[in-house]
Amino acid sequence: MRIGYIQFSPILGDLAANRKLVRERVQAAPPADLLVLPELCNSGYRFPDPAAARACAEDAHTGEFTRLLRELAASRGTSLVSGLCERDGDRTYNSAVLVTPQGEVHPYRKAHLFLDEKDLFLPGDLGIPVFDVGEVRIGILICFDWQFPEAWRVLSLQGADIVCHPSNLVLPGLAQRAVPIHALLNRVYVVTANRIGTEHDLTFTGLSLVVSPRGEVLQSAAADREETAVVEIDPRRARDKSVTARNDLLADRRPELYGVITSDGRGPEPA
Amino acid sequence: MRIGYIQFSPILGDLAANRKLVRERVQAAPPADLLVLPELCNSGYRFPDPAAARACAEDAHTGEFTRLLRELAASRGTSLVSGLCERDGDRTYNSAVLVTPQGEVHPYRKAHLFLDEKDLFLPGDLGIPVFDVGEVRIGILICFDWQFPEAWRVLSLQGADIVCHPSNLVLPGLAQRAVPIHALLNRVYVVTANRIGTEHDLTFTGLSLVVSPRGEVLQSAAADREETAVVEIDPRRARDKSVTARNDLLADRRPELYGVITSDGRGPEPA
Repeated sequence: MRIGYIQFSPILGDLAANRKLVRERVQAAPPADLLVLPELCNSGYRFPDPAAARACAEDAHTGEFTRLLRELAASRGTSLVSGLCERDGDRTYNSAVLVTPQGEVHPYRKAHLFLDEKDLFLPGDLGIPVFDVGEVRIGILICFDWQFPEAWRVLSLQGADIVCHPSNLVLPGLAQRAVPIHALLNRVYVVTANRIGTEHDLTFTGLSLVVSPRGEVLQSAAADREETAVVEIDPRRARDKSVTARNDLLADRRPELYGVITSDGRGPEPA
Repeated sequence: MRIGYIQFSPILGDLAANRKLVRERVQAAPPADLLVLPELCNSGYRFPDPAAARACAEDAHTGEFTRLLRELAASRGTSLVSGLCERDGDRTYNSAVLVTPQGEVHPYRKAHLFLDEKDLFLPGDLGIPVFDVGEVRIGILICFDWQFPEAWRVLSLQGADIVCHPSNLVLPGLAQRAVPIHALLNRVYVVTANRIGTEHDLTFTGLSLVVSPRGEVLQSAAADREETAVVEIDPRRARDKSVTARNDLLADRRPELYGVITSDGRGPEPA
């Protein structure tokens, strides 16, 4: 199986220009089964106010951006995961969609909002789901979600083979240092597709990467230029959770001791 | 506040020799408020069978090893955390104790057992607790516990400032790569005190370290020689969980989405 990222710079507020950029880059990409694009690819990132975000927001299933992704996924025979400024009725979300060559569209809404995103978007309300595409199970996290170990664990516990991570990262190198550890501790492949470029006060830090379930960086991009890369992987490597002949990353968990993570703040009780 | 590690090589099965080694090393250590020693310091690690582990196991509160730790803690004015082969009635645990200069003894029992430890010890049944020592809140994880992000999170959610991590690590460098990320994502200090030396088929990998809540390695040891090191820290740095002016590592969590981590395996439900 071949998976990769498209690292580029969307244009803030120009939906038509972004569709053109995405079309050209997907069409120029090497053959792949799964390509991941950055966060908010249809719209750009640094909206000055909620109305500006709202003006760029599209329906995750029927909007023009998703229609383009479906067309490209079908014509290229490639599943695509892309960030998307999403409108659902009167609600706006920082979302991503997984679009398959067969035309399926699976949305995810960013669970952990960063800084002023809290003024622009509602927090994700679709859970942290996984999606089966052929033989492979895929999860999605968006940018700042990376800082929450629970999000990676929830995907691994649901059997994700590959975590797609559309990003607009601005903290240089921090996520790129942590993502291989999340991959290692959950035994999953990760594709972090980060953007480049500057919008107002923000410079995005590139360094997109593909990581193996052993925490090896299989491929990585520069900090400041467009790059598309695709690598060959074996998703079965993500299904072997054994650490030793007698240890398994998931089966050895002690969930009865972890209650505080999902409770109202009470500590776990001694047995 | 001054915290550090004592990296050395206990002797398998020789309780009296290990008390002598620990006494000499604690007495020779620079002044410190907290010193962390490796896993199973009273006994060594590579027991051939359960009877051998049993023969070395001591009561965590009244055994000779803990009495030594109390004496040293009092005379040096230093809290000590050390791994201990523990006997409680007819049960044997891979434990650690936190011993304060005032004579308090706080035990923890390793939650996640590695390889043949499963034949020797019962899994920890004291939860993953924190202990207040003066102004500082301390948690303990033992060796292989490091591979479980939940264990670190449980301690951080309970307000741990410092995670003490007595270890007998054999996988070279893996924990040392992940521990700074656990520290970063939970904003805690970590002292990993690993042992050196070889017992039968196992060589322990040293590289003890002290890590800051920002994931910086403040101090680290060699792979193969005795070392004691102490560094000055400010535990208040562990209490500031802010990532940005509007983001907080713990307050931004979405516990309602993390249910699968502690449930019977059902995925989190969409809202």
